[in-house]
Amino acid sequence: MDDLLSRLLEGDRRAVARLITLVENGDPAAKDPIRRLHEHTGRAHIVGITGPPGSGKSTLVNSLTKELRARGKSVGIIAIDPTSPFTGGAVLGDRVRMQDLATDPEVFIRSMGTRGSLGGVSVATNDAVNILDAFGKDMVIIETVGAGQVEVDIVKLAHTSVVVSMPGGGDEIQALKAGIMEIGDIFVVNKADREDAGRTFAEITMMLDMSQRGEDRVPPVIRTVATTGQGVDELADAILEHHLYLQEKGLLEKKARERILAELQEIINRRVERTVERALHEDPEMVELVRKLVETREIDPHSGASQVISHLLKKSEV
Amino acid sequence: MDDLLSRLLEGDRRAVARLITLVENGDPAAKDPIRRLHEHTGRAHIVGITGPPGSGKSTLVNSLTKELRARGKSVGIIAIDPTSPFTGGAVLGDRVRMQDLATDPEVFIRSMGTRGSLGGVSVATNDAVNILDAFGKDMVIIETVGAGQVEVDIVKLAHTSVVVSMPGGGDEIQALKAGIMEIGDIFVVNKADREDAGRTFAEITMMLDMSQRGEDRVPPVIRTVATTGQGVDELADAILEHHLYLQEKGLLEKKARERILAELQEIINRRVERTVERALHEDPEMVELVRKLVETREIDPHSGASQVISHLLKKSEV
Repeated sequence: MDDLLSRLLEGDRRAVARLITLVENGDPAAKDPIRRLHEHTGRAHIVGITGPPGSGKSTLVNSLTKELRARGKSVGIIAIDPTSPFTGGAVLGDRVRMQDLATDPEVFIRSMGTRGSLGGVSVATNDAVNILDAFGKDMVIIETVGAGQVEVDIVKLAHTSVVVSMPGGGDEIQALKAGIMEIGDIFVVNKADREDAGRTFAEITMMLDMSQRGEDRVPPVIRTVATTGQGVDELADAILEHHLYLQEKGLLEKKARERILAELQEIINRRVERTVERALHEDPEMVELVRKLVETREIDPHSGASQVISHLLKKSEV
Repeated sequence: MDDLLSRLLEGDRRAVARLITLVENGDPAAKDPIRRLHEHTGRAHIVGITGPPGSGKSTLVNSLTKELRARGKSVGIIAIDPTSPFTGGAVLGDRVRMQDLATDPEVFIRSMGTRGSLGGVSVATNDAVNILDAFGKDMVIIETVGAGQVEVDIVKLAHTSVVVSMPGGGDEIQALKAGIMEIGDIFVVNKADREDAGRTFAEITMMLDMSQRGEDRVPPVIRTVATTGQGVDELADAILEHHLYLQEKGLLEKKARERILAELQEIINRRVERTVERALHEDPEMVELVRKLVETREIDPHSGASQVISHLLKKSEV
């Protein structure tokens, strides 16, 4: 495994792919290289791009990556896909659209599924971002469907969060947008050639005006047509400017700190979860507690939680 | 607070509303009544209804509730809403549509926001479901936007999960549907009066045929038009039949058990999270660990997690 990390640091793409696969499968062989990788991270500009289904995120990431490459930046992309339980893999065709980028040695694209549990996805995604960071990519883009809390959690840990909207959409879609508005550093109205794009642009601008974000910076709202590339240069400008802004204000360290602490918390949660689950199935005292919780209902879940915690503390088993 | 639980058990709606508010705000005053409430739970049939934005879930829940009322069932509804960070409250107008139900004393409707952290939402939602169960509602319906993992987690803990789709939708929407297909006990194609409804119906039927669900029961796919009530009687039949099926197969106890264990795990996670967060900010040894993690990067998050856990165990502080 020593070899895997050295190969990665020397620029071997297959080592990168292999390590991400190990991480995604929760393979213990990933443990050592991932631990030793940490000191090589912290250089990449991490960009999260999120938006509702159908907003054209993948096409936008595609165009944006071409623009960033034209400016000399190397780019890593982690695309989080909803996963089909039937195929066990990503069912989206969007990835295919990125194939023209796949031949560029300065671009590394990886899809990751969202199967498995909550904490698991976040931990694996963070590890994958760190891998591409250590691999030396100038920018790492995380692309997600911005509907769920997990996706929001992943994206808000980026240095720069881009929230993509599209014209139209019902009340509920508007509400979903609202839910992710507070995390956006840059807003994009994609499919801006549609006739109702002006209204969406005005709505977002208004919501931003109404919000008290406690920042001296007003997030830009950018109109793009990802399929033609229109507005994508402006988006690239905004992303790079935001990085400069973070540097000048000393906010880059703050973001890096928050990112690492969130990672730490996720790893701890996952480990506690596994320990508790094992205890509830295997430890006789805990099996009896479960019986009282479920069958006789003489213990409630909140009191049960206290008992599980003190039991595990006594055994020092977490 | 003794009074609050007694009033609730005697049928006082205001006590129910008050206790859910306490739970939602994480108020310590909720602790005692929630603990003592557990022994009064376990009687309600818990139904999760999920689907993508715009599929007409709220209108369907409305029609379904009327149908269930006509069959003599009392109904509690917990509607999980995406929350606007600007208003601090639910921004959906859908709830308004349910106002004609709000005057029925045998119906209790409550919206809950998704603000706050992951575990928090699940714990509060479970508490609210338990409150309506103890309050004596025959059926408790949890309605969520089925896009995120949290929503899926909440709904899969129901006895009966209903997945609502609508005709059309792009690739990505199809994929999202796929992601929640494995949790559905009943599938609904709403807006079935649209011309492309037949195709969606066929697609879902095909996906179900392809899946190996390891059950002797094939989930029904039901066509509804929630706005006119068409197909809603058939949906009510399917939901009640599924409950009978669970009883006959002895699966109701299994589901109840899984539900309570998931609740327990969530409560433990939340508590560990809070303890760790406090330690990282206040405990000198942990503050130093954070410095090594973030500044010098001589400790990586995975090793850091081990150190935090053994430190807290030593201090028996979780």
